[in-house]
Amino acid sequence: MSEASRIPPRSGVAFELAKGERLVVIDPDGCQVSDLLAFNRHDLREVLSNGRTLDYEETIRLTTGNRLWSNRSRVLLTIEADDVGSHDFLLTPCSEHTFRHFYPDKPVHRGCFGNLAEALAPWGVEPDSIPVAFNCFMNVPVAADGKIAVLPPPSKAGDSVTFRAEEDLVIGLTACSAYASNGGSFKPIDYRIVR
Amino acid sequence: MSEASRIPPRSGVAFELAKGERLVVIDPDGCQVSDLLAFNRHDLREVLSNGRTLDYEETIRLTTGNRLWSNRSRVLLTIEADDVGSHDFLLTPCSEHTFRHFYPDKPVHRGCFGNLAEALAPWGVEPDSIPVAFNCFMNVPVAADGKIAVLPPPSKAGDSVTFRAEEDLVIGLTACSAYASNGGSFKPIDYRIVR
Repeated sequence: MSEASRIPPRSGVAFELAKGERLVVIDPDGCQVSDLLAFNRHDLREVLSNGRTLDYEETIRLTTGNRLWSNRSRVLLTIEADDVGSHDFLLTPCSEHTFRHFYPDKPVHRGCFGNLAEALAPWGVEPDSIPVAFNCFMNVPVAADGKIAVLPPPSKAGDSVTFRAEEDLVIGLTACSAYASNGGSFKPIDYRIVR
Repeated sequence: MSEASRIPPRSGVAFELAKGERLVVIDPDGCQVSDLLAFNRHDLREVLSNGRTLDYEETIRLTTGNRLWSNRSRVLLTIEADDVGSHDFLLTPCSEHTFRHFYPDKPVHRGCFGNLAEALAPWGVEPDSIPVAFNCFMNVPVAADGKIAVLPPPSKAGDSVTFRAEEDLVIGLTACSAYASNGGSFKPIDYRIVR
C-alpha cells in the first residue's frame, strides 16, 4: 500500500486516478472536510453531478455501496468503505464569494473553489465548469422544514472514506478552507491511492 | 398583461427574459412539473446552480422571497409569488438515461433534458452544460434518513409561480415528460412574460 500524501490546510491538489484504482481520503486529525471532484480524464466535459447522483441513488445520505454519477448518467466512483457516514452533496465549494457572504468580518480566502480551480487548471478545467463537489465528512443536516445547517464534521482522527474509480478520472481534492464546515479549525487532509 | 403561451405535453421552449421582467409559470390543469433553467444571456457559461442556491438560501424548500443563484454567486431570479410552495432543486431533468433507469418497461423518451437541449441549442448551449434545473411544482420529500421520494405535485389547476429576472437571461422551460414527477399524466404548462 502506498504512503499517504498530505494536503496542507486550506489548499488543494489534482491527480489522475485510473479505472479500478482506489482513492482513500483520510481525516488525520478529525473534524475536517475534503471537497472531492471527478472528471472523465478522456473528456473533461463529463463531471460529477449531484443531481444525477441524488436521482439515481434516491438519497442525500451517500455512503458505502452508493455510486457517484456524472452529468452523462455514468458512474464515475463507487463508495467502497466509509468510517463516517456523513458527507454532503448539496453545497458548492467555499469561494471568495461565500467568504464575503458568510464571514463578512473575516479575511477573504479563495476557498476550496479557488484551490480546485488552480489545481485543475493544468488539465484545462475552467472555473465555470467546477460543479458541486462531493464534500467528504461534511455535516449538513436538512430539517423537516427544509432548512440547511452546517455543523462540525463527526469524523474522528484517522477516519477515512474509500472510493473505487469506475472510469479513468482526473480528481480534485481539498483540505477545506471555510470556518463553519470544519468547526472553525483548519486542518490537513491525507489521501492514498491504492493501485 | 400578455396572453399566456402554452408548452405542449412532453416538450420544451427557450426564450429571452430581460432584467426586470417577470416570468409566470402556470400549471393549467394541476399536478404537472415544469423544469426551469436560466443562463446569463451575455455569457452562457453563467447558469443556475443548485449548490450555490442551497448554500446562500440555507434551505432546500425555496419559495416566495428566495433567490436562485448562479455558479458565479450572482442572483439570476427571485421568486416573487408562489401559489404552491413545492418545488425541487435537487434532481436533474429527466432524460433518455433516467427513462431507461426508472421505467425499463416503458417507451424511452428524451425527456426534459432532451427538450431543453433542443430548445437551447440556438443560443449555443451544449447538452453537457445543462445543470440541475429548478423543477417548478415538483414534490420531492426528503425523509429524516435522507431518502428521496418523487410524489405527485400538489399544484392545483391554475396555480402559478412568478420569477423576477435580476439579469438579462436565456430561459429554458418544459412541460415534464417523466411518469413519477407528474403522477403518471402528461399535461401542458403555460407561461406568461410580464414586461
